[in-house]
Amino acid sequence: MSGADLIFREIDARREEILGGLMRLLEIPSVSADPARASDVRRCAEFLAAELRSAGFQSSVEETGGHPAVFAAAQAAGAAPTVLFYGHYDVQPAEPLDKWTTPPFSPAVRGGAIYARGASDDKGPLWAHIQALRLWREHGGLPVNVIVLLEGEEEIGSPHLRQFLERNRERLRADVAVLSDTAQFARGMPAITCGLRGLLYMEIVVRGAAFDLHSGSYGGAVPNPANVLVELLASLHDAQGRVNIPGFYDDVAPLSQEERRQWSRLPFDEDRFLRELGLEAGAGEAGYSTLERRWARPTCDINGLTAGYQGPGAKTVIPATASAKVSMRLVPDQDPDRIQEAFERTLRQRCPAGVRLEISRHSAAPACLTRTDSPFMRRAMAAVTRGFGVEPVLIRGGGSVPVVGMLKEVLGVDALLAGFSLPDDREHSPDEKFDLESLRSGMRTAAALYEELGRR
Amino acid sequence: MSGADLIFREIDARREEILGGLMRLLEIPSVSADPARASDVRRCAEFLAAELRSAGFQSSVEETGGHPAVFAAAQAAGAAPTVLFYGHYDVQPAEPLDKWTTPPFSPAVRGGAIYARGASDDKGPLWAHIQALRLWREHGGLPVNVIVLLEGEEEIGSPHLRQFLERNRERLRADVAVLSDTAQFARGMPAITCGLRGLLYMEIVVRGAAFDLHSGSYGGAVPNPANVLVELLASLHDAQGRVNIPGFYDDVAPLSQEERRQWSRLPFDEDRFLRELGLEAGAGEAGYSTLERRWARPTCDINGLTAGYQGPGAKTVIPATASAKVSMRLVPDQDPDRIQEAFERTLRQRCPAGVRLEISRHSAAPACLTRTDSPFMRRAMAAVTRGFGVEPVLIRGGGSVPVVGMLKEVLGVDALLAGFSLPDDREHSPDEKFDLESLRSGMRTAAALYEELGRR
Repeated sequence: MSGADLIFREIDARREEILGGLMRLLEIPSVSADPARASDVRRCAEFLAAELRSAGFQSSVEETGGHPAVFAAAQAAGAAPTVLFYGHYDVQPAEPLDKWTTPPFSPAVRGGAIYARGASDDKGPLWAHIQALRLWREHGGLPVNVIVLLEGEEEIGSPHLRQFLERNRERLRADVAVLSDTAQFARGMPAITCGLRGLLYMEIVVRGAAFDLHSGSYGGAVPNPANVLVELLASLHDAQGRVNIPGFYDDVAPLSQEERRQWSRLPFDEDRFLRELGLEAGAGEAGYSTLERRWARPTCDINGLTAGYQGPGAKTVIPATASAKVSMRLVPDQDPDRIQEAFERTLRQRCPAGVRLEISRHSAAPACLTRTDSPFMRRAMAAVTRGFGVEPVLIRGGGSVPVVGMLKEVLGVDALLAGFSLPDDREHSPDEKFDLESLRSGMRTAAALYEELGRR
Repeated sequence: MSGADLIFREIDARREEILGGLMRLLEIPSVSADPARASDVRRCAEFLAAELRSAGFQSSVEETGGHPAVFAAAQAAGAAPTVLFYGHYDVQPAEPLDKWTTPPFSPAVRGGAIYARGASDDKGPLWAHIQALRLWREHGGLPVNVIVLLEGEEEIGSPHLRQFLERNRERLRADVAVLSDTAQFARGMPAITCGLRGLLYMEIVVRGAAFDLHSGSYGGAVPNPANVLVELLASLHDAQGRVNIPGFYDDVAPLSQEERRQWSRLPFDEDRFLRELGLEAGAGEAGYSTLERRWARPTCDINGLTAGYQGPGAKTVIPATASAKVSMRLVPDQDPDRIQEAFERTLRQRCPAGVRLEISRHSAAPACLTRTDSPFMRRAMAAVTRGFGVEPVLIRGGGSVPVVGMLKEVLGVDALLAGFSLPDDREHSPDEKFDLESLRSGMRTAAALYEELGRR
């Protein structure tokens, strides 16, 4: 019996004890967005630091300038690589409360799942890692050196994380990072996420007259900033759904035939996908499947529009200003700065006389892509296979996980994204849940992963 | 000395008494939009009804379902046509109060003008008419039968006016209507407004998924209602600034060469017009001057845009819905219903699959145009010439004066629009004023107008 097999047995033997601990963790309303919950957030950090201490880690609650982080470290029995596990213990607000079957901070088990805010995002998965680590400590020692970093501000955009990483470069030095803040592809189909899209989030303001004008007295003779704004925004796509910014696709890494073939074999149910969103048809760039559009093609989406009168009824006004929030999802190897430059240049060229155009940036992050043929990736795949009893599929994600880029940029470390959650876990929504089977498979995967990553 | 010449002398002789009465009228804060001012609005109606009674009219305050109207009538000495004078005694809110040099309801005379909320819109002009009528009554009798209708809800969109006109068709029967709720073209350049644009005000809602989606997970694969909305809205104009709705211009009455020539000779200062609006350049349909664009060409303007996240910062959301308020200014002989049909048909044809499009109408009114060669118009021009000492120019207005259409539709009566106000009277803004010279010329014009309209 290898080390991990022993751990697997313990996982089943101590099932109830482990679940009981997770329920106590879920009872703490660590809502990072709510200033009134700041002391609960801190209490949650202290709870986890104590848990890690009792599992044999050197552990502390660390100040970040915002909500604290939990730092913990423990050494392998012998010489071994160092693995950095990142998770976040803060949760989304639970509102609307009346949509919950049971209260969000009174965890309840029913139908084989535990229901609570944060169950799936990210307390369940991080608990799986901590318990796997505890069991290794208690049964022969850790197979790798482990650093644990638990953030308390992930749900509010990680405002202090980069600084924290920079200040703690030495203590966080690792050979590879492990995250479980992603999902399985489907129930019984675990996945390793090996690519994430980047993001360029811009704001556009069009200004016309110094004040709102009466559309009767002035309409037709003065520039209408709202008319100009929609013209500019509409120009950002062509009839094939492609982004119409010169240079936008210049650096886009094409999908390999092999990837397209693999993805096309994933059991993705397009009809069900649309039905669950209340849609009759998808949309997007011609020539690509829905998964390709979500995972590997760049976008340009309007996230907000504001102009003129927004109340009920009618007001005959030519607004003095009109504005839009526009974000672009970027793919490998698009450079956010170059795309921003092209975006701005294009809009300024297309902007008619008579209005002023203001363009500003909210945020930017490049896409990331993990090599699928690296030794660490092969070991992660082996670990997931042992944990779930089935080989993982290699997928990508459409969103960004900003910490992945920060770990690479600040610490120079690649991240393995092996998630335990399910797509139907309702993260960020009422009745969030985490399947007990996900908890079990997650602990098994984590246990195997630390062993695999320690192999010579 | 003709009748009106005698009245002109009295106007000057009784200048201070007349101004004193206007100041008492301006002291009443008859703000129709403010429920807390309802009793002031009624007090204002009673003040005017009493004024008309003392001028020899049968006069009453009449219920409308909202703020009351003032109705008054008096007969000519002999057989004569009947003239309906319409004015409104309610005023706009005075806010922001700190922008007034003197308080809005403490009328103050300085620099040859009287400053108060409503001085120009519309208490000064209606006072000019009432005093002209009083002087006629006191010096030989009215030259025409006169009906006076003073509305108390013009500034809130005349919600009860049409019903009131319908219920009182018989008592309001007249040969011609007279309004003074318009302006001179410029100081010393009185005008008769012989055309007004109509209005078709629509709302568009584009609906996509059943709920807001994360732009990372879904972006690029699902329809974005905001992207679709801007595409639809941008399609409503072509590169020449023309409205790009098939059939939109089919019924547009072209401007005659004579009108274009007349308007081009009006002393319109384009640079000053733009400067006062804080604009560097105008905009609009190619091939037309600014006055032509404002008075005689139809438009399509976005009055409001609403979608997604509108707060500070960024939120990566694909909004479930996006909406716009869009209004079209219509010109003779565009039919609002036909234009609405073309608008809806065009948008539905252009709307891509995957979203639902909802289109609704807020309001509609056709443009109106008064024949400039009618006997009543010739008499009105003669009256303005006598009142101001200079011939009026014939102009149009870009906005709508809904009562003009209602008078035509419900009572079958044409309206003469001879205004006394000046473009710089700051109607609806702080420091609204009415020049004493406008009051004098207005009274003279009104006096002459009732005489001219009574000519056989």
